[in-house]
Amino acid sequence: MNLKEILKERGVPVENALKKYLSVRKPEKLYEAMGHIPLAGGKRLRPIMAALTCEIVGGEPERAIPYATALETIHNFTLVHDDVMDDDDLRHGVDACHVVYGLPTAINAGDALFAYSFEMITDTDVKSDVKNNLIKHVARTVREIAEGQQMDMDFENMEYVSSEEYLKMIELKTAILFGAAAYGGALIGGTEEEEANKLRDMAISIGLGFQIWDDYLDATASEELLGKPSGSDIVQGKRTLLVIKALEKAEKEQGKRLQEILDNDNNENSDIIEAVKIMKETGALDECEKIALEHLEGAKKTLSKYPDSEARKDLEELLRFMVERKY
Amino acid sequence: MNLKEILKERGVPVENALKKYLSVRKPEKLYEAMGHIPLAGGKRLRPIMAALTCEIVGGEPERAIPYATALETIHNFTLVHDDVMDDDDLRHGVDACHVVYGLPTAINAGDALFAYSFEMITDTDVKSDVKNNLIKHVARTVREIAEGQQMDMDFENMEYVSSEEYLKMIELKTAILFGAAAYGGALIGGTEEEEANKLRDMAISIGLGFQIWDDYLDATASEELLGKPSGSDIVQGKRTLLVIKALEKAEKEQGKRLQEILDNDNNENSDIIEAVKIMKETGALDECEKIALEHLEGAKKTLSKYPDSEARKDLEELLRFMVERKY
Repeated sequence: MNLKEILKERGVPVENALKKYLSVRKPEKLYEAMGHIPLAGGKRLRPIMAALTCEIVGGEPERAIPYATALETIHNFTLVHDDVMDDDDLRHGVDACHVVYGLPTAINAGDALFAYSFEMITDTDVKSDVKNNLIKHVARTVREIAEGQQMDMDFENMEYVSSEEYLKMIELKTAILFGAAAYGGALIGGTEEEEANKLRDMAISIGLGFQIWDDYLDATASEELLGKPSGSDIVQGKRTLLVIKALEKAEKEQGKRLQEILDNDNNENSDIIEAVKIMKETGALDECEKIALEHLEGAKKTLSKYPDSEARKDLEELLRFMVERKY
Repeated sequence: MNLKEILKERGVPVENALKKYLSVRKPEKLYEAMGHIPLAGGKRLRPIMAALTCEIVGGEPERAIPYATALETIHNFTLVHDDVMDDDDLRHGVDACHVVYGLPTAINAGDALFAYSFEMITDTDVKSDVKNNLIKHVARTVREIAEGQQMDMDFENMEYVSSEEYLKMIELKTAILFGAAAYGGALIGGTEEEEANKLRDMAISIGLGFQIWDDYLDATASEELLGKPSGSDIVQGKRTLLVIKALEKAEKEQGKRLQEILDNDNNENSDIIEAVKIMKETGALDECEKIALEHLEGAKKTLSKYPDSEARKDLEELLRFMVERKY
């Protein structure tokens, strides 16, 4: 199957579970707000990764669905709250939750989605001690995601952010939820802790590559393809790996100009285009692409130890998509 | 022991656990924001209720501490987010979290507190299946608290709210977290589901009385005693049981005037005083006091079935405080 087919076919049980869990009941405004972003689309990368990891270790992927759906729900709760925190108005091509339902209801809907995700995990058909392990892991993961979100917000007011600080931030904010997908999928599939942790490391590595690639796309792809404004990281003055590398490599005047654009709250579209041009000329775009691909190579190596199967092929295809996609 | 001594002595292990869990680490701004409201005080009613319920059924109260601390953490996360949603600036006599740390960090700190609470529950020393039961119960409780918060916010834009709707709202928003305290405390103490559910019902009843009494105090006590502005429910036009009963009982002109004050966004202090006077003259204040006391009587009856012990005496004292306190 090609990637599109994999996402479609493997996504079906997750879509069904989401629709069931998020059916509208009283108070309607809350449940409508809860469903707004999760049911507006998304590639379902995290739940599909959980189900595929369950399958490559020999488990039945269906058993991972409640857990997988919980992770997708957590991902969506963070999107709803992040859009409030970052004041982003567009998500998955639709208005952000707080734009449609107002800020108080968006905060509340995020909280309810988060709570619901733990109910979903307890719906998983595994032994109680495994379930406890999943809950502890996911709870800690979400707390660490909040640490990553905090670092991200703190960066906006810092003069200088190092590559190491940036990579730590995206590990927490983005990569470890993929880690939780692989870790939990593996445990539900019947593996021991040690193997689950190796698969977690693989997924974290891919998550890093995914975010580096995401920053790359934010700077280079169009609003229509992204489903959100292009160059929004530059507009918000965020220090992405692209920016950090470009500032490191830039000549004096070039670097000064890039910094100026990042610090300016009233950029024209031509300023954004100029910033991207500097990223290209300094070689920062190429270097970030190279780093993303290195993460992919490492992950493929981990997967190569598993027997050849449709699940392994699908998972490889998924990983490739995460760090090489053009949209 | 009198109530003050009970709260002080029984609160010690909870205070210690909170301080330990909420020690500041990186990123500092997040952990400082997380600790701001939980460590600013509070009576610790929910965790103390959990520990005492554990003890009256024959368990060791220390074993309930991680669970009890989780409930206090959840209570505080809802306070942090509610203050953002309701635009309240003062809490426990200090500035609200978003006033000190800004709205984005307050939302993020609330999320992190919520995640942490599930880590705390998994730290409880009980069998895995009991732990899963606690997790499922608490997750569902928090989702229902969000339902209650939504009803509360929706009420502000409704012409008419019935007593039944109001009571359902405070059951969800306030009472069921007390229910979770008694339910979980009982299970950790070693009881079966059925008895835990009876104690849960008792705690929910007391929680209802507590909120009815809280609304009463909001209308009648001073800002210094409350640690937040007096009459803030009236300022915000909230439909409390007091208001609903007063509107039901008021003569035409009186009712019209009360409604006018509730709908007005620019009330003077004299308007607030007038609204409280109407609540008194209509007998609404007296009736709410009576309802609160009925909840107390029912709860005392449930407790009377347990052997006479220090824990039972302390719990009775706690319940009495919840619906009769003067501050």
